[in-house]
Amino acid sequence: MKITDLSHVVHNHMPVYPGTEEPFIEHPFKLEACGYNEARLRMVSHTGTHMDAPAHMLSHGLTLDRMPPGKFFGKGRILDVRGKNAIDSRFISYNIPDFAGIDFLLLFTGWSDHWGKESYFSGYPCLDREAAEFLSTFTLKGIGIDAISFDKEESTEFTVHKILLEKEILLIENLTNLEQIGSQEFWLVCAPLKFENSDGAPTRVISIEGLMLQNSEVK
Amino acid sequence: MKITDLSHVVHNHMPVYPGTEEPFIEHPFKLEACGYNEARLRMVSHTGTHMDAPAHMLSHGLTLDRMPPGKFFGKGRILDVRGKNAIDSRFISYNIPDFAGIDFLLLFTGWSDHWGKESYFSGYPCLDREAAEFLSTFTLKGIGIDAISFDKEESTEFTVHKILLEKEILLIENLTNLEQIGSQEFWLVCAPLKFENSDGAPTRVISIEGLMLQNSEVK
Repeated sequence: MKITDLSHVVHNHMPVYPGTEEPFIEHPFKLEACGYNEARLRMVSHTGTHMDAPAHMLSHGLTLDRMPPGKFFGKGRILDVRGKNAIDSRFISYNIPDFAGIDFLLLFTGWSDHWGKESYFSGYPCLDREAAEFLSTFTLKGIGIDAISFDKEESTEFTVHKILLEKEILLIENLTNLEQIGSQEFWLVCAPLKFENSDGAPTRVISIEGLMLQNSEVK
Repeated sequence: MKITDLSHVVHNHMPVYPGTEEPFIEHPFKLEACGYNEARLRMVSHTGTHMDAPAHMLSHGLTLDRMPPGKFFGKGRILDVRGKNAIDSRFISYNIPDFAGIDFLLLFTGWSDHWGKESYFSGYPCLDREAAEFLSTFTLKGIGIDAISFDKEESTEFTVHKILLEKEILLIENLTNLEQIGSQEFWLVCAPLKFENSDGAPTRVISIEGLMLQNSEVK
């Protein structure tokens, strides 16, 4: 069994979506004075590696706390899209002719190499509108990417987000370590912090290779 | 495959360990004004369903962000201890004669029925010192309980915590829904929010029934 952590660590002064608030972590409760160490965290719901719920962009959209936990675990499939700027449906369907049994699609752009640099925030690879429409026809639980957004930085309409969130496909942004996944198929845990009315949440994302279903419903 | 959420939802005015800070969630960024919904969260590291790292109580203890992700996933075993006030080693060893292949032990006390009531905070079942010493001899990744603490409310020494944290056994508190786990053995995800220097963290805990290893290292 191989377990890989696909989440960035949250810390003060970390990269955040341009114009949004940085997290603030402090350690006011110390072992010497209090008998235990305890930290205090402040962050917005889309900090670091996180998940967008339909409620992030859609007035009628569900929040994460209203979703069953089965939405956060399933079969993952990784697609190497390094070197592509626009990820189109033709490329996806050529490489993944059959989406049966796939719960999560991870788009491995390699863009996490820019994490911590100004270049992380512009020119990152995105799905084009038609690719979003194509993917929205499958019963995916979520799509992940190792970049800051599924829409281009100049987007104000967030078309790709809205097409996919409309179908309750969760959008996982700011993944990392995708190069460490050894198999094209694996199990994926996407475990969001569970808080009330969550339009999105910081999410621990972990891949697991080497497990199978007890009954062979899935190849 | 059966997936069960064992985590409480974090919300304003939720139960917290007596004397510690309540979380505060606000929704300052609204779709109508900003084009997206975004929440702001403030909470201490031991809010709701959470995990204690060795650094919570030990000056030389590791923080969660320094642990490999394999610490947060493994084989779970549930032990029904409902009706017992002190959970002793004799009861544990009688019911679980062999800890081989068990990564996480969940103590099902039934005390989560008191969640939201004043009675949640006193008279809850605990491990006794000898049970903690007994459990510390196994290579467990973690122990979980559906109550507020592993030590009694009057404890100032936190002896049970320290015995187990000394062996880097993670302590998961404030679990819920344990009665919904259908099998004695299952897989357990304990996915803490990943932040720097984390003495503990709010944790999404999910059980998975119906998966097995591809190679049969574990029965």
